[in-house]
Amino acid sequence: MDQMTILREKAWDILKETMIHFGQEPVGTVAALDPHVNALNYDQCFIRDFISAALVFLAKGETTIVYNFLLQTLRLQIKETQLDFLEPGRGLMPASFKVVYNENGERLQADFGDHAIGRVTPVDSCLWWVFLLRAYVRATGDLGFCHTPECQKGLRLIMELCLSARFDMYPTLLVPDGACMIDRRMGINGHPLEIQSLFYMALRATQELLIRNNENAKTLKAVKNRINPLVSHLRQHYWLDLDRLNIIYRYKGEEYGENVLNQFNIYPESVPYSQLSDWLPQEGGYFVGNLGPSQLDCRFFSMGNLMAMITGLSTRDQAQKILNVIEIKWSDLVGYMPMKICFPALKGRDWEVLTGCDPKNRPWSYHNGGNWPVLMWLLVASAQLHQRSGIGQWALETAAQRLGKDEWPEYYDGKNGRLIGKEARKFQGWTLSGFLLALEYQDRPEILDWISFEPWDSDLPEPDLESV
Amino acid sequence: MDQMTILREKAWDILKETMIHFGQEPVGTVAALDPHVNALNYDQCFIRDFISAALVFLAKGETTIVYNFLLQTLRLQIKETQLDFLEPGRGLMPASFKVVYNENGERLQADFGDHAIGRVTPVDSCLWWVFLLRAYVRATGDLGFCHTPECQKGLRLIMELCLSARFDMYPTLLVPDGACMIDRRMGINGHPLEIQSLFYMALRATQELLIRNNENAKTLKAVKNRINPLVSHLRQHYWLDLDRLNIIYRYKGEEYGENVLNQFNIYPESVPYSQLSDWLPQEGGYFVGNLGPSQLDCRFFSMGNLMAMITGLSTRDQAQKILNVIEIKWSDLVGYMPMKICFPALKGRDWEVLTGCDPKNRPWSYHNGGNWPVLMWLLVASAQLHQRSGIGQWALETAAQRLGKDEWPEYYDGKNGRLIGKEARKFQGWTLSGFLLALEYQDRPEILDWISFEPWDSDLPEPDLESV
Repeated sequence: MDQMTILREKAWDILKETMIHFGQEPVGTVAALDPHVNALNYDQCFIRDFISAALVFLAKGETTIVYNFLLQTLRLQIKETQLDFLEPGRGLMPASFKVVYNENGERLQADFGDHAIGRVTPVDSCLWWVFLLRAYVRATGDLGFCHTPECQKGLRLIMELCLSARFDMYPTLLVPDGACMIDRRMGINGHPLEIQSLFYMALRATQELLIRNNENAKTLKAVKNRINPLVSHLRQHYWLDLDRLNIIYRYKGEEYGENVLNQFNIYPESVPYSQLSDWLPQEGGYFVGNLGPSQLDCRFFSMGNLMAMITGLSTRDQAQKILNVIEIKWSDLVGYMPMKICFPALKGRDWEVLTGCDPKNRPWSYHNGGNWPVLMWLLVASAQLHQRSGIGQWALETAAQRLGKDEWPEYYDGKNGRLIGKEARKFQGWTLSGFLLALEYQDRPEILDWISFEPWDSDLPEPDLESV
Repeated sequence: MDQMTILREKAWDILKETMIHFGQEPVGTVAALDPHVNALNYDQCFIRDFISAALVFLAKGETTIVYNFLLQTLRLQIKETQLDFLEPGRGLMPASFKVVYNENGERLQADFGDHAIGRVTPVDSCLWWVFLLRAYVRATGDLGFCHTPECQKGLRLIMELCLSARFDMYPTLLVPDGACMIDRRMGINGHPLEIQSLFYMALRATQELLIRNNENAKTLKAVKNRINPLVSHLRQHYWLDLDRLNIIYRYKGEEYGENVLNQFNIYPESVPYSQLSDWLPQEGGYFVGNLGPSQLDCRFFSMGNLMAMITGLSTRDQAQKILNVIEIKWSDLVGYMPMKICFPALKGRDWEVLTGCDPKNRPWSYHNGGNWPVLMWLLVASAQLHQRSGIGQWALETAAQRLGKDEWPEYYDGKNGRLIGKEARKFQGWTLSGFLLALEYQDRPEILDWISFEPWDSDLPEPDLESV
């Protein structure tokens, strides 16, 4: 057997060990199996972390664990309207759950962020859940679960939570800082790309998954009405390439009225021109990290950009430009471990002000410019879907040189990802599954159909449920 | 006549000139009457700006304009659920309106922030509207309008907008940056004090104004359930005095679980200790500007602190401590013009990062540490209500030396408020009305009953509607 095959089998063996059971049934995986450190909250199954493992199980034909996970997390979803209480909003899914035992047997206990450090809200959980439900349906052809009244209700609640009107007049979602994979303060409050990418994906998935009936009619209409403005907003206002940079560079501030050029009143001085004009490849482009009044966060966030290419939020042309950036800026964005969660890192006073002096998020560490192997499956998938499989191959070979030897750490530090993450746990579930899943997608691009969407076009016919 | 009387009569004459009419009826006031500069958006009636003018009109017995304003803005409120559309949320009130004319006559045109520079959302408008409705009812004894089905529905919609569950698990309201009087980016996204103070006030006012009937039962229950946790959260976690500062100074980070001391994972290094330990008076205390995961914004924001004292969000003891800070730090917080909107100003990189290089909000200018005469009515009211009327007197005498001579500018600049605001319009409505209202409250403390509340105590009996 070649080295890659040996590594792959080892990873699969360890991943199977992370499975947790409820009753006699597998229901999820723990976050990490590191024997060297105290468990802390690593005995939980995190919704976000489990997604890549679930997709590996689907690829291997082990669908029961995914079904059980979808069913049990659906039961943990908040079902009652919370107008009266200080509890999570109706439709919200937990950040994580664990099996707890008492005299009456065992039960699943959900955590909605109230146990989390700093009490951040897991806005992305419910969006990832929709993503996984669609993948499960496509991989198994099993529409039975999806068509149960419980599941249809769960989908409606998620959509209602996301679509109800708030204090905001953009098509995007307003969230607090740390509401997604970056779950500590990192200056991504407002309308961060990752959440918007996932939100768009969830809208499209729901269009496929909701039965066309009276009960769902209002939700389906709301979904349909939201996609177009959301996509236009993101493709237009979040997009940055050299042409856009030139336009922004010459923006005038303080324009008043409906049809102004500088709609968000961005002051050009706030955009790091000298770095960007140097760094941004001529043939490249990407979605910026955040947009709001007088705010344009030009950091490159990988999760949002990769999801955009997989789910058709980007046009085909935009996808090529994003992949160009990744390829041309390989040492910045990938380096020795695919790949950086964001680039560049916040430094000096920016780090102090925007992270609140978070020592875990020091420059080029953890969320603040660390490298996360789990992102590999998204990178390989994006590259495959846009006929750039060489990028995925290169990423896999790079990762294979380190992951096993380093005992599958959660993240890497340093400008080029050469240091094992300072506080990284070893044998981390989503490092193992991210690598395994990347290999599956590299070998069997046909199963990318489970997770991908055609690039959005308002002329696309509405998905026909029966054809799913 | 003495100087103050002459100034007062002049101010009243100019304020009357700012009135705008709809049909034959007065309906509001324009923001400014400055003959020297282009009108821009200063031909509008801003909800927020009109509040102090409305209270002056009530004090003078001119109640028609207030009634018309309440009625017409209620009609402009968004009434339909907006799940389907990219429009303002149901319950939201506009930032401003103006009278527009066409062949069919005249109509009122609302602006929900979509015309505003940078497209910020006026979250506070609906809260101020509730404040004014209560003051109108108390001043006139006229319950008729308040008891109309339209008005009761408007109140319910405002409460539903504010109380419905979102992505958040605090009792406070999550809002984007610039959602209140500080309506440009200033690093006040999240849970800024001003919005929380107004939200609390609106809950208490609604308890008085909603009729106890079946239709309102659910809303009233939700309001009741929210007040206590909101007040506890604010009085406990937002409060800063030397004792609290000592506790925070010794915080440990990264605590995990439900009952940790440092619930919000604040890193002590992010708190400006050397300045605060120097600045904060021994016998003083105040509500900080914002709180979230790893975020404690220790700036002093006047609007939120003053409203807290007027509406009983602060305990009596806390109110004394806030007034102590204002009195002892007079040159910082008041200086030559009552009073600073926030202290200290953002400077250097903080200004770049948090305002997006906003030139209007340069250090010690405009929102970023400028002095705003309109705040005077809140200062005088707070001082009167807590038996510290000397503070109000001192503020009024200070202001009287400048306002008329400087032609009633909107704001002042500089560390001590000695410069007329760089871009301030003259003959600004809420500068005139803020001064006039402060004089009314200084002279007739009995009418403070229209705007004030007993300090919140969970043992307080529920307000009896008939006694309003």
